[in-house]
Amino acid sequence: MRQRNKPWADDFLADNQHIVIPNPGEHKQEWNKLFKNNNPIHIEIGTGKGQFIVGMAKQYPNINFIGIELAKSIIVTAAQKVLESEQENILLINENAENITDLFAENEVSTIYLNFSDPWPKNRHEKRRLTYHTFLTNYREILVPSGNLIFKTDNRSLFEYSLVSFSHFGMLLNEVNVDLHAIEDPENVMTEYEEKFSAKGQPIYRCKSTFNQAGTKGF
Amino acid sequence: MRQRNKPWADDFLADNQHIVIPNPGEHKQEWNKLFKNNNPIHIEIGTGKGQFIVGMAKQYPNINFIGIELAKSIIVTAAQKVLESEQENILLINENAENITDLFAENEVSTIYLNFSDPWPKNRHEKRRLTYHTFLTNYREILVPSGNLIFKTDNRSLFEYSLVSFSHFGMLLNEVNVDLHAIEDPENVMTEYEEKFSAKGQPIYRCKSTFNQAGTKGF
Repeated sequence: MRQRNKPWADDFLADNQHIVIPNPGEHKQEWNKLFKNNNPIHIEIGTGKGQFIVGMAKQYPNINFIGIELAKSIIVTAAQKVLESEQENILLINENAENITDLFAENEVSTIYLNFSDPWPKNRHEKRRLTYHTFLTNYREILVPSGNLIFKTDNRSLFEYSLVSFSHFGMLLNEVNVDLHAIEDPENVMTEYEEKFSAKGQPIYRCKSTFNQAGTKGF
Repeated sequence: MRQRNKPWADDFLADNQHIVIPNPGEHKQEWNKLFKNNNPIHIEIGTGKGQFIVGMAKQYPNINFIGIELAKSIIVTAAQKVLESEQENILLINENAENITDLFAENEVSTIYLNFSDPWPKNRHEKRRLTYHTFLTNYREILVPSGNLIFKTDNRSLFEYSLVSFSHFGMLLNEVNVDLHAIEDPENVMTEYEEKFSAKGQPIYRCKSTFNQAGTKGF
């Protein structure tokens, strides 16, 4: 997901530190202080332009949402959407998902969303896929024991790869959809990508899974 | 899968007891005596008109294939295909898959194929689906420890249900395909149904899985 460089992005972020939180590692284990409540925390890794997380925050006002996005030029668009929404249950983090255990403490997160993650199709880039086992190890650490990993993609190969990866990690698949928009799910909030690809008739894949006790199996 | 009654079916089966084995329970643990070798045994549950199993037997002459089909009027068509193929590595059983542990001993089978099984879409018929946990318990009993369950269907809901069922049974998903014909798999042998549905552009779903030590989890 590339956009032109936005020279005003730094200024915008400096002006909106109540939305895109600087030095996020300092809030590890204390995110709910920023939200001023003890609601469950759901995070989205790869928030992009923010349509999903803002839609979710509106739909679930009693959940605290945190969006993580590495690209500065993109997170500003998400931040603008958050500003416009006037939702107080969304924060953003301009960070790399590789460092997620520096951002959240054990059991601090209830649900993780991975939406339309980069498929990294080449075998030699397998380790960069957000459903590779090293990432799963980190997700398990920050999730509550019954916490959900909800993964959505239009990329067939990444989906197939990820189901196998989840299974071999000892995760439980609780719901699988191989054509999400063939069913009526009024609770499904679409990302920008999802709207675009779905409109072209491309099936959208989704899996809801949890980590169980056998989670370390094989690693 | 319904066909007209075939009054000649009984005569045909009586004449071809070397293909459609009568009293199959008597051969439990001794199927390889009928094949006169010690090759691995692969079984197909719901063999239908036999295109898959005959194609597989030609492709893998060093594997013994046994097809199980409940409908007498259909298994005669499969038996005719076996006769014409002159393959000696196929036998058929006219039995109900519910009784599979009466037909095969522990560890007697290396691979089980479920192809285009009846989806039984109503919730109250869940127990009849061939991927319901009671069936999985039986499959695990007759399969060797590293044995495969290879499941193929065009039915989205049955596929989604089955992945969840496999996962909750503690099975390992080793390969998942959500659009089998989008990839080139020269080893894939198509069933009659698969040819028909695939020609219509319907995606075919496939999952290859194994039972692991955690297999009884939850049941």
